[in-house]
Amino acid sequence: MSLLEGNLLVAQSGGPTAVINASVAGVIQEAGKHTQIGEIYAGRNGILGILDEDLFDLNEEMARSIEALKHTPAAALGTCRYKINFKQAPEQAAKDMGRLFEVFQAHDIRFFFYAGGNDSQDTSHKIHEEAVRRGYEMRVIGVPKTIDNDLPHTDHTPGYGSVIKYNAVSTMEVGADVGSMATDDGACCVLEVMGRSAGWIAAGTVLAKRAPSDPPHIILFPEIPFQEDAFLDRVKQVVAENKYCIIVVGEGLKNESGEEIAADKGRLDAFGHPVLSGAAHRLAEIIQGRINLKTRTVKFGYAQRAAAHYASTTDMDEAVACGNAAVRAAIEGKSGYMVKIVRTGNVPYTWKTDLHPLAEIANVEHFIPRDWIEEDGFLPNQKFIEYARPLIKGDNPVPTLGGLPNFVQLKKVPVEKKLPTRQ
Amino acid sequence: MSLLEGNLLVAQSGGPTAVINASVAGVIQEAGKHTQIGEIYAGRNGILGILDEDLFDLNEEMARSIEALKHTPAAALGTCRYKINFKQAPEQAAKDMGRLFEVFQAHDIRFFFYAGGNDSQDTSHKIHEEAVRRGYEMRVIGVPKTIDNDLPHTDHTPGYGSVIKYNAVSTMEVGADVGSMATDDGACCVLEVMGRSAGWIAAGTVLAKRAPSDPPHIILFPEIPFQEDAFLDRVKQVVAENKYCIIVVGEGLKNESGEEIAADKGRLDAFGHPVLSGAAHRLAEIIQGRINLKTRTVKFGYAQRAAAHYASTTDMDEAVACGNAAVRAAIEGKSGYMVKIVRTGNVPYTWKTDLHPLAEIANVEHFIPRDWIEEDGFLPNQKFIEYARPLIKGDNPVPTLGGLPNFVQLKKVPVEKKLPTRQ
Repeated sequence: MSLLEGNLLVAQSGGPTAVINASVAGVIQEAGKHTQIGEIYAGRNGILGILDEDLFDLNEEMARSIEALKHTPAAALGTCRYKINFKQAPEQAAKDMGRLFEVFQAHDIRFFFYAGGNDSQDTSHKIHEEAVRRGYEMRVIGVPKTIDNDLPHTDHTPGYGSVIKYNAVSTMEVGADVGSMATDDGACCVLEVMGRSAGWIAAGTVLAKRAPSDPPHIILFPEIPFQEDAFLDRVKQVVAENKYCIIVVGEGLKNESGEEIAADKGRLDAFGHPVLSGAAHRLAEIIQGRINLKTRTVKFGYAQRAAAHYASTTDMDEAVACGNAAVRAAIEGKSGYMVKIVRTGNVPYTWKTDLHPLAEIANVEHFIPRDWIEEDGFLPNQKFIEYARPLIKGDNPVPTLGGLPNFVQLKKVPVEKKLPTRQ
Repeated sequence: MSLLEGNLLVAQSGGPTAVINASVAGVIQEAGKHTQIGEIYAGRNGILGILDEDLFDLNEEMARSIEALKHTPAAALGTCRYKINFKQAPEQAAKDMGRLFEVFQAHDIRFFFYAGGNDSQDTSHKIHEEAVRRGYEMRVIGVPKTIDNDLPHTDHTPGYGSVIKYNAVSTMEVGADVGSMATDDGACCVLEVMGRSAGWIAAGTVLAKRAPSDPPHIILFPEIPFQEDAFLDRVKQVVAENKYCIIVVGEGLKNESGEEIAADKGRLDAFGHPVLSGAAHRLAEIIQGRINLKTRTVKFGYAQRAAAHYASTTDMDEAVACGNAAVRAAIEGKSGYMVKIVRTGNVPYTWKTDLHPLAEIANVEHFIPRDWIEEDGFLPNQKFIEYARPLIKGDNPVPTLGGLPNFVQLKKVPVEKKLPTRQ
């Protein structure tokens, strides 16, 4: 193992989570322990900022700001959805890759950490391969992050525990509200949660259920084709038993032809965007229209993934540990890996971090096993519950100011540019 | 003042709040101090349950359950929207009123407390008048409750502080998320909050704003007719300055003809219900369709009024105090009043409870003064901010179990019926 010396660059990518900044804090705090690492830079808005040589100096931030990142939601470094796509745009991809290495070399970046989901791990993988190809010595480690929990080979992903904790408390609260208003007429509410292709997020709301009659009463998964008649029968049955019905739906719910039920095919806006009415809205139309049951909707949207005010301490601790582990791996000479979480026990819950080759992570999507869902497809079963239960434990109290969180905003002191502007 | 002795009946009405149960706890705990009061009963689902003689005995609940009501959302006694409507249905109203007094007499109810908003205060007022007319000695006191904050004569209503605290933290979090994803393309998100006719709830999200560039950037009030061109100009200006724009809209936003913009007039479902697409959804269509700016939506729905996990301690304390004060007033011989909150100082914030005649409360709606909103109509001004700021202070930590709140469920031991079933 050579003693590589140089600077560190960390960036964030994809949709934010409540704890993606905790991973960045983990990277920075661990990096401070290793004298091989000189400067600690961030790329603004992921690789987009790196392409623009738009870096800022994290050593200029106060230590307490770095600590405060652990309970600050969103991507404090800025994020992007930009993808280096050799398949669809090979020329642009080659140009981008060349530019990235110009920036790495200009700033002597020898340790590169990219926190993100599938696409971002793919980017990390390509950067690692390019470094090897070029003989540019740089350690590239992916830091896992996604509320969708759809990365393979890791027990779960940082961000997931917090999103299901928030959605579960919201399901409890909305359920109590609707239940307390329910009289013999019945009442129904549909909660739409994120998850375009995997139902992990929707499934997590089952943790709100402490007794069989508790909400949620029905969970609809994007993996299981929506069958309108069977669904309406179940709604009627639940209302007959409880006087109310709480339904959770993943935004990507599809019919048996594989089309999202939220898509209103007849309508395009002036720019040709298809008009998406939202899965919850569509279900409410179906329920009210076909069985005349008053139905309201809730759509948490970005609020669910940004809800640092109700984040899981377990999730935050794991996110920090993933950042720490990424730096330790790089210091140990590893490159081309993603940090993963390995569950070592369930009662009591224990876990450790490990590494997995990026080549086996990139672009692979991990779905809920079918046998973790009840046969009728309307609720996850005990296997899922045992898996998910530990992930939401622990409250993560956020320092407040005037009754609202005191989230940190970084100073973002720019790093002096050394290259001509990108063409 | 005669020393009236007898039983107490408390009930909840209208949409729940995060702290309506705190008011009930206040009633019960104060009632326990007065030997004039014998049994402490609840009506299930408001006056609907009283009409059905469906009462349960609150003295059968554990003291710690009553204390736990203070952080349990929704209406723990059950609620209803039933109205005794002498104008539209005089015969039914007369019949209902007769039945109510049969139930009161059968159970020797001498102290009646009804927690609710405008309609419920109207009901309390009618019951008080009927008691006087009949010469049935009973003390009737209204306990204020509404997230809408639209009751007159009280500085604000219990429930309001908590809903704006939740909506404000959500605005901060969603704002951070969208801001962190914003690149030169711009990004926009519309948050829909409750408030059909008054903009108090939408206005409260301004507390998320600590710097002029902070979200929310635009707040749309039901009181101010929506002007599409001026709005789009403002959105473009905000995006030019910040790269992103967070908009909060009250669900009842209306156009200049007074029609709700959410109504999709062309569409009715099979039962003839008009299809409401939601104000946020409609605004997103307008923004994407007219200025091609990617726009997401969030609709908190019932989640905002049930969010006990992020309730305001100030609000909870005031809700308890209103319950206490209602019982003290009744013990002092008062009837036909609503408890109100009087602000006695702003820095530091101080307050007390007082009483106001129900006759002046019922069916009067209180709107935001126009001079508390900026002239252009897009944000509340400093007058509103100074008014609202104290109401969200203090966190109200909820006991948890496995990472989720441990809300209480009452045993609801039924009171033996003494009357024939209602016809």
